[in-house]
Amino acid sequence: MRIAIYQCPPLPLDIDANLARLAAQAQAANRAGAQLLVCPEMFLSGYNIGRQAVERLAEAADGPAAEQVATIARHSGMAIVYGYPERATDGLLYNAAQLIDAAGNRLVNYRKTHLFGELDKTMFSAGAAHCAVVELHGWRLGLLICYDVEFAETARHLALAGADLIVVPTANMAPYDFVCEVTVRARAFENQCYLAYANYCGSEGEIHYCGLSSLNGPQGCRPLLAGEDEALLIADLQRSGIDNAKDLNNYAADRRPDLYERLAKN
Amino acid sequence: MRIAIYQCPPLPLDIDANLARLAAQAQAANRAGAQLLVCPEMFLSGYNIGRQAVERLAEAADGPAAEQVATIARHSGMAIVYGYPERATDGLLYNAAQLIDAAGNRLVNYRKTHLFGELDKTMFSAGAAHCAVVELHGWRLGLLICYDVEFAETARHLALAGADLIVVPTANMAPYDFVCEVTVRARAFENQCYLAYANYCGSEGEIHYCGLSSLNGPQGCRPLLAGEDEALLIADLQRSGIDNAKDLNNYAADRRPDLYERLAKN
Repeated sequence: MRIAIYQCPPLPLDIDANLARLAAQAQAANRAGAQLLVCPEMFLSGYNIGRQAVERLAEAADGPAAEQVATIARHSGMAIVYGYPERATDGLLYNAAQLIDAAGNRLVNYRKTHLFGELDKTMFSAGAAHCAVVELHGWRLGLLICYDVEFAETARHLALAGADLIVVPTANMAPYDFVCEVTVRARAFENQCYLAYANYCGSEGEIHYCGLSSLNGPQGCRPLLAGEDEALLIADLQRSGIDNAKDLNNYAADRRPDLYERLAKN
Repeated sequence: MRIAIYQCPPLPLDIDANLARLAAQAQAANRAGAQLLVCPEMFLSGYNIGRQAVERLAEAADGPAAEQVATIARHSGMAIVYGYPERATDGLLYNAAQLIDAAGNRLVNYRKTHLFGELDKTMFSAGAAHCAVVELHGWRLGLLICYDVEFAETARHLALAGADLIVVPTANMAPYDFVCEVTVRARAFENQCYLAYANYCGSEGEIHYCGLSSLNGPQGCRPLLAGEDEALLIADLQRSGIDNAKDLNNYAADRRPDLYERLAKN
């Protein structure tokens, strides 16, 4: 599968403008032969927008904006992962990411489970469950959002559920560059999977984003690494990369779950 | 606390020679003001020595070699972590590491829980439990050995048990440089602790060791990083490094153990 990662500055509070640039990037990704396009966290609305804006802009996972994303997916022949503020049927607001396939089907919706500081906590409720792992073009895909990936347990859960591609829309800012530079590489290697990390660049209010979006491979390589500017990054996932990693070590077989009980205790 | 990490080529099959160079390094570490000296995995015997040699050289955790290490510790005023082949009272052979303090007390003995490939499995039985976390000069110290640290669950367990310093004797070889370069940094950062990684350099049979021993800090810095040559590396652990990391994020508080049950299931 060929993947495209879209790193961009946020366009806060303007869902129409974000849908317009999503359509343009999906067409560009299609011309480059990609089958999956990944955008940053809260892509449709911007991230650092405050509670009132989230209340105003949040929609259901099958709301009007999702329908427009599905239309873009169909027109471009592109599966799309994008972040957005979700208004759930329980009345709560979530920091969500959704995968819509090239036929316009909503394959999976995920609500960020690990909220980042006051910024997230003033805007959102925490998700109650991990993402289900879903199949796309023969790859088993799971979603995390930003701060989630800093907890090794989240990526491990998805890998144990069969994920060989973990997709992470993010809005990671200074001074947390370490996560872009080191953590995401470690997650891919230790779980013997690919991990796609789609970040913002530029600024949004007092926040300065790191850029450094990346595709991280199971053998420690980084097929893609953005700088600090807007970019559409394209690379192929290689099944052999996973096979070769598992030939060197088989972490799944060598784990000792009998020794890990403490991790699940409060 | 000031820590010394001793990176060296293995001296296989010669416990006396290894005790002699341990004494010299402990004196050097003492002159540099260090309070803790960390040596590689299976330091007393060499690592790639085969089952027969392990059977011949293995001793109890309080055996004659341990007594000599205790004497070196007392004479140099140095706590010492060293790897060795352990013959347990259950008759089994373990890949072990032990911490002996400057008074010559055996503070903790740990048996490698995650065995690495045929190399470990032909020589050793797997340990049945994590290391207890013990206090040394106001720091709470836990032990892992080599391959253990590649599993995020092990370091997390020690951090949850209160460790603020994870000490890892290792014998890490090509082509696993990634673990030296990335994994150990991620472990320190994600657990908001220090992690000391003491590796071999040089060769032992068909194995070529990576060197790259390191001290990895809670904020992503690397106060120490060796090259490929023999070296005694010295640095101070800073309590403020941990405090500052926890001011930025508090991973312990932000974890969601209710979501981590799968990690402990077979």
